[in-house]
Amino acid sequence: MSRPARVTVVEVGPRDGLQNEATAIGTPQKVEFVDRLSAASLPVIEVSAFVSPRWVPQMADAVDVFAGITRRPEIRYTALVPNLAGLERARGAGVDDVAIFAASSESFSRRNINKSVDESLDTYREVCARAAALNLRVRAYLSTAFGCPFEGAVSPSRVAHIASALIDMGAFEVSVSDTIGIAHPGQVPQVVGAVAERIALDRIALHFHDTRGTALANVLTALDLGIATFDASAGGLGGCPFAPGATGNLATEDLVYMLSGLEIETGIALDALLAASAFIEPHVGHQLPSRYYRATRGR
Amino acid sequence: MSRPARVTVVEVGPRDGLQNEATAIGTPQKVEFVDRLSAASLPVIEVSAFVSPRWVPQMADAVDVFAGITRRPEIRYTALVPNLAGLERARGAGVDDVAIFAASSESFSRRNINKSVDESLDTYREVCARAAALNLRVRAYLSTAFGCPFEGAVSPSRVAHIASALIDMGAFEVSVSDTIGIAHPGQVPQVVGAVAERIALDRIALHFHDTRGTALANVLTALDLGIATFDASAGGLGGCPFAPGATGNLATEDLVYMLSGLEIETGIALDALLAASAFIEPHVGHQLPSRYYRATRGR
Repeated sequence: MSRPARVTVVEVGPRDGLQNEATAIGTPQKVEFVDRLSAASLPVIEVSAFVSPRWVPQMADAVDVFAGITRRPEIRYTALVPNLAGLERARGAGVDDVAIFAASSESFSRRNINKSVDESLDTYREVCARAAALNLRVRAYLSTAFGCPFEGAVSPSRVAHIASALIDMGAFEVSVSDTIGIAHPGQVPQVVGAVAERIALDRIALHFHDTRGTALANVLTALDLGIATFDASAGGLGGCPFAPGATGNLATEDLVYMLSGLEIETGIALDALLAASAFIEPHVGHQLPSRYYRATRGR
Repeated sequence: MSRPARVTVVEVGPRDGLQNEATAIGTPQKVEFVDRLSAASLPVIEVSAFVSPRWVPQMADAVDVFAGITRRPEIRYTALVPNLAGLERARGAGVDDVAIFAASSESFSRRNINKSVDESLDTYREVCARAAALNLRVRAYLSTAFGCPFEGAVSPSRVAHIASALIDMGAFEVSVSDTIGIAHPGQVPQVVGAVAERIALDRIALHFHDTRGTALANVLTALDLGIATFDASAGGLGGCPFAPGATGNLATEDLVYMLSGLEIETGIALDALLAASAFIEPHVGHQLPSRYYRATRGR
């Protein structure tokens, strides 16, 4: 399998990133952050989540953020939705796609969304059916695919089974996610191999966390397996909730630097991306962990 | 080329790491740090440098550090030497091997060791001859092999030429070094390929910095090319002098975690290595950058 010539980077900083930061960010700052990410030509930007503000107060302003951003026609602006009510709100806000969030392990599903895996799939089946009627595409996250903070190892065949169920209910893509940042290049072929037995390669995205420093090595391994869609977060926004203070999402800058070195096209303007990170950094109140970003800032 | 079943990790934290830390470390702390690294079964530990204390005051206690450490017979304790005088001092201290430090680019050589590349090779030729007479092995670093902070790009053929000269004068191994942490997996095959045309694969080591987050992806690429020796620094000790505050050496913990995931043997006890980093961290006065280390510390 040769590496793809082009990779789609899904920017998750405004949602997954900011949701996992300790400091609340104001709506105008979120809007400007998304606009700056648009200026960097990220092809997909997950802007917010239409979830209960009781559970996720950081995302309570989802409608206002969508109303405030300046959209570019070539960029898809997406949002997480937990259920039908969220889907309707997201639709009202004018999202391009929605995203749902399933788990590979029972314990994580119960603790994270208060449902068993099967119960969550029942909900998402309704969401997918309604989204299809609304002509909205659904992206599915599949968390804890490389390990669960409560259960430990998760079998690749279980991950493949749930990934397949998500595609069957109508998701166009499954983002197989290393929620706790434990994946390594020895594990990536096992998980991707199992999933690719059930669903087409071009419907598999990977979502790595750099908690143990392996995210780019995992991406490199996945590229060799033919994967061409990766999630990342500007500046590495967002921590690892299971290792307080440790690095969370793979930083978009680090990913783009490596892909550029491999002469893999992303369409992303790295300088503009660095400017977006530099804008949001003072608002989150700590140094962003992206190594590439920090090297360019001289610190 | 299949990946090696076993990798040799050269621990450079006590020398390359501490030399590039802003805070001076006391001799007893250095001794305990090396002893703890020995307890982690690092196969090679670069302990110090026998250089002028005027130029490198951090290494002025090289003799005392060697006198203080408790050696294990299976571990090689090495030191950097700039010239014949350093070699004699190192020999007196009972080093197992010595290391010399050449550059791939003229500007870096002149600014770093105040000699042209050819002048430095003349000096190192004398060092190698004398070391052979003393039955001491010589390891050679070849810095700025992936780019120079002053000149920018460095041609792989130039790197290969100097690497070959170092082997010809008697070095048993050349550590091809990414001094500014700019290497990416697209570049590694070019540089390693050029060097491997001139010297045997098992005489090539690689020394990556994680300044832009690519170090482990570079290692993964090099493993696929058959390289089986990598330098690393406990906790990621040592900064990048050309990007103040940015990460320097690849962290030994991150490397060992990835190699372990790939089922590549190193013989290193990761828990003991983490303990060595935890010992030295308060003495350097800042959080160590190793992502694996920080994930285990919950911060």
